[in-house]
Amino acid sequence: MNRTKVIDIRGRKLGGDTPLICSPLVGRTRERVLAEAGVVVAKHPDVIEWRVDYFDAIGDVAAVLDAGKALRSLAGDAPIIFTRRSTQEGGEATALDDEAAVRLYDAAGASRLFDFLDFEMSNHPEHVRRVVTAARASAIRVILSYHNFGYTPGQDFLVQRFLEAERLGGDVAKVAVMPRDRVDVLALLAATAEAEAKARIPLISMSMGPLGAVTRMIGGVFGSSLSFAVGEGSSAPGQMPISDLKSVYDIIGRARASR
Amino acid sequence: MNRTKVIDIRGRKLGGDTPLICSPLVGRTRERVLAEAGVVVAKHPDVIEWRVDYFDAIGDVAAVLDAGKALRSLAGDAPIIFTRRSTQEGGEATALDDEAAVRLYDAAGASRLFDFLDFEMSNHPEHVRRVVTAARASAIRVILSYHNFGYTPGQDFLVQRFLEAERLGGDVAKVAVMPRDRVDVLALLAATAEAEAKARIPLISMSMGPLGAVTRMIGGVFGSSLSFAVGEGSSAPGQMPISDLKSVYDIIGRARASR
Repeated sequence: MNRTKVIDIRGRKLGGDTPLICSPLVGRTRERVLAEAGVVVAKHPDVIEWRVDYFDAIGDVAAVLDAGKALRSLAGDAPIIFTRRSTQEGGEATALDDEAAVRLYDAAGASRLFDFLDFEMSNHPEHVRRVVTAARASAIRVILSYHNFGYTPGQDFLVQRFLEAERLGGDVAKVAVMPRDRVDVLALLAATAEAEAKARIPLISMSMGPLGAVTRMIGGVFGSSLSFAVGEGSSAPGQMPISDLKSVYDIIGRARASR
Repeated sequence: MNRTKVIDIRGRKLGGDTPLICSPLVGRTRERVLAEAGVVVAKHPDVIEWRVDYFDAIGDVAAVLDAGKALRSLAGDAPIIFTRRSTQEGGEATALDDEAAVRLYDAAGASRLFDFLDFEMSNHPEHVRRVVTAARASAIRVILSYHNFGYTPGQDFLVQRFLEAERLGGDVAKVAVMPRDRVDVLALLAATAEAEAKARIPLISMSMGPLGAVTRMIGGVFGSSLSFAVGEGSSAPGQMPISDLKSVYDIIGRARASR
């Protein structure tokens, strides 16, 4: 693990020895998001992701920021990732067009309520540039992400996704793909290890679904610096409870420290 | 997982959904082996391996069988693997030459105190043939094994080791190798998955040391049907406590059963 890659945020080290555990919030209303946050925060994930594509009032910037502000105060020390996942990459259907989504990200960044913005690198290059530039101006980090819920592209393509995120100015690169067989699971891990040796930013990766679930446990060994786990509701197939993932990390830590 | 590959022994399924957990006994005297067995059996591993190369009196067949008989009665329902690991493949130095080792295996097989004999496939072909034939006559299973404590050979070579074990008449094929980097860890898993698709016998595999320790946890997903864990003393680098491995299997079982 290259120490220069570590992002220290609110005392959490993204890119350190053990992956951070991140729990998604998938509530549809302000009340549900905040109730969910209460349950999730009590389980002490390292990071919280607000999946704003689940939020019914996503089209109302003021309502989003108002819920975000309440969430920020509930989250305590935990960094928050602000994510509007598109339907093409596994998100919920919303009325937002791409331009409106970028304006929402502009407002979210400027509010400084969030620590990370997750933006898909398949967005229009001009939109990626705008989000990265605006986030930088607000001292907010950007996770540039790639998701494929249909299959797992080849290892070289996956390595290029990580490196493309870096080239586009991302502070973190995320790749999440669906395996069709065990070879796909190993391809995701191999691509992560290969990209980690080349990239200068922290990486996040996972193979989804029941077959890929083990990558959420052992991805850290291959260079993934964050893993999603269920606090109250899951946001993707294969996520396990926070407590289970913590147990696994403790066990891996002891095993790797042994002779 | 191909159901025809399952070996059902004393109610344990080698080659079933979850790998069996096997604890080694590494005592130097009859008293130590039996004391160790008492501690280990209380932790309920699925299988016990007696590493007889650690046994000071290994040159005295009667002493070995006497200790084996006491061990058999202490072990309760647990199947026992009888293993004399050679120094070339990571075992303890003993005074036994190859011919004496084969005579020891003959006696161990004929005693029917053990359920499996682990014999290295790098032994002289005539010795492998003798051990396999004698074990078959006593209705005992043979694990034909390959260990490399120095490095991890290429994936094709590893696949061939599994298949060679089957060709030589083994009931189970075991491959244990030392990784130098993360790519080696993935090569061992990929070789296991590839061999499992081709072999008609259960496979056991692991990447050793702290780096490979995760393969002891997730090897089952890639076709390994048994994992070694520490009851009292470890027999190879990277082994974790039985209770930790059981916790991980429970968590993997839940994660794979989820949506």
